[in-house]
Amino acid sequence: AIIDELLQPVSQALAGQHWLITAGPTREAIDPVRFLSNNSSGKMGYAIAKAAQRMGAKVTLVSGPVSIDVPAGVSRVAVVTAEQMEQAVMQQVSDADVFVACAAVADYKPAAIAEQKIKKNAKTMEIKLIKNPDILQQVGALKNKPLCIGFAAETENVEYYAKDKLQRKNLDMICANNVAKKDIGFDSEENELVLYCKNGDSVALDQNAKYTIASDLVSEIKNRFF
Amino acid sequence: AIIDELLQPVSQALAGQHWLITAGPTREAIDPVRFLSNNSSGKMGYAIAKAAQRMGAKVTLVSGPVSIDVPAGVSRVAVVTAEQMEQAVMQQVSDADVFVACAAVADYKPAAIAEQKIKKNAKTMEIKLIKNPDILQQVGALKNKPLCIGFAAETENVEYYAKDKLQRKNLDMICANNVAKKDIGFDSEENELVLYCKNGDSVALDQNAKYTIASDLVSEIKNRFF
Repeated sequence: AIIDELLQPVSQALAGQHWLITAGPTREAIDPVRFLSNNSSGKMGYAIAKAAQRMGAKVTLVSGPVSIDVPAGVSRVAVVTAEQMEQAVMQQVSDADVFVACAAVADYKPAAIAEQKIKKNAKTMEIKLIKNPDILQQVGALKNKPLCIGFAAETENVEYYAKDKLQRKNLDMICANNVAKKDIGFDSEENELVLYCKNGDSVALDQNAKYTIASDLVSEIKNRFF
Repeated sequence: AIIDELLQPVSQALAGQHWLITAGPTREAIDPVRFLSNNSSGKMGYAIAKAAQRMGAKVTLVSGPVSIDVPAGVSRVAVVTAEQMEQAVMQQVSDADVFVACAAVADYKPAAIAEQKIKKNAKTMEIKLIKNPDILQQVGALKNKPLCIGFAAETENVEYYAKDKLQRKNLDMICANNVAKKDIGFDSEENELVLYCKNGDSVALDQNAKYTIASDLVSEIKNRFF
């Protein structure tokens, strides 16, 4: 009964909807022990998953390797690489009403993965990288695409890059943040977003705890699109 | 009083000794969001720190980015890169009786760190890598070196590589593990080690929980060298 109560969403505003959310980094192996990755902690994506669940949505969270517990009532699919994330998203997306691409998917992966640990004999080394699948672009290009919300984590020209990505990937909204700011974004407890919508509107969500920002973002999506 | 009791070591076998232990991976930045790293969880190094503290040693843990709480009574110095780890170790080492190099230090780092997030325009990319400092080799070469314990995490030719490292780096003992085995080593709860000593002795510590292996290792070091 306690479990049932904990699983009870706090509102039913999103009842009947399925939200598919990606979170965390991906890791791209160089050899059995080394990899390429990025500073995403997964906190923002997990906060969005929790907020959507608590407003009554069915939530599937496709998550790269992070150290966060799954929010109550949320289904998590754990993945490591961008390709695994692509596969998990594509399996779920036909059933999703909303797709929130919050994961920091590695854009590139090593062209080859060494089968054994590479010995450090050479003074220098080169790693050749090739492009990873672009999951958000694939979802945006689907004939019956869900509502698509992207993220743009940039260190410069934030608005320009965000609006460009919104258009190129056929998104309904993009959430831009400046990860060069030390107290927000990657691996911090707070965030600050500017939401750019397809229709030209923009909304600033000022610096606050990630769960507060996530709740405001989910409410904004609900109010604008449903 | 409860805190005092928790901080109370369970034996005084290592009383008066200072153990300097490294743990976890290092991260080497490519740009403000991307990095190179490895699968080390830090669990083994933290378990050794806890075991040494509970036998009465003063313990300093120099740790790369991990998601583990500091064991009670242990001082942690948090670092990110191999160079930061080198600096922290070199600051502490003159005062150390035992140096246990359990961290999986990145052998290479990008030759240059991009100031801004690299845009993914190119279909392929190359990262040029240069060698990182070899912390264990530096400590092993010190005139008044502490007792030096290394780790060799290998995926093949484990004994050969371990013994080679023992000799090249002037170590007193090396702990070899085969990280190709799925249920032990990197990011798992258990480990299995073979200890190779300078005098030719070897000791197998069969598969067990990391804290059990750590306690056995610390006892082995105490019995052999003190």
